[in-house]
Amino acid sequence: MPVEQLNLVFAALADPTRRAILARLAEGEATVNELVEPSDLSQPTISKHLKVLERAGLVSRGRAAQFRPVRLNAAPLEGAAQWLGDYQRFWAESLERLDVYVKELKRKEGRHGSRRTRR
Amino acid sequence: MPVEQLNLVFAALADPTRRAILARLAEGEATVNELVEPSDLSQPTISKHLKVLERAGLVSRGRAAQFRPVRLNAAPLEGAAQWLGDYQRFWAESLERLDVYVKELKRKEGRHGSRRTRR
Repeated sequence: MPVEQLNLVFAALADPTRRAILARLAEGEATVNELVEPSDLSQPTISKHLKVLERAGLVSRGRAAQFRPVRLNAAPLEGAAQWLGDYQRFWAESLERLDVYVKELKRKEGRHGSRRTRR
Repeated sequence: MPVEQLNLVFAALADPTRRAILARLAEGEATVNELVEPSDLSQPTISKHLKVLERAGLVSRGRAAQFRPVRLNAAPLEGAAQWLGDYQRFWAESLERLDVYVKELKRKEGRHGSRRTRR
């Protein structure tokens, strides 16, 4: 995936309204009005968010006359997921370290507990 | 992962310099000077990018006196990867559709080829 598109995809995902739009479109295509209705936002605001998503290649608009339904185009998300995938071993390592730490705490707690029992 | 942190993580990843800093830190911690050196950017610019990464929880700074090495903190990337994971079936479906399309093209090409042989 080109660097420039990766920038646009991550920037598009940085907004909760845009993530909510994608979640809605994951259930099926929708008209702009159908996207505006459940939100507290105006139609121009939703349209602005759609333009950001469209530039990132994450949605496309149908040509069907006046309604032009909006469709999810998930392919660019794969590029973002692949980028994140390169770091998977690092968060796995953090979890491993956390696990070791928790076990150590439990071990200490166990010793502490038995000491208490001995008293 | 809280919505607010997910916003900050995706926004932090939307910049190629910040992604390059994370890639460098994946090799080990570094001082700000070590991050400035291979880039064409000034120290204040790199420091600004580090603040964005720090607010997103993606890097942390050591307390070791003047050098304060910067460390990768990959855990928040997992939240972003999980968010993307919910959409995996959609890009898998796109690939599946592409596969069906390519097979159909090949089938047609095959028929075309055999017709040519018959002539």
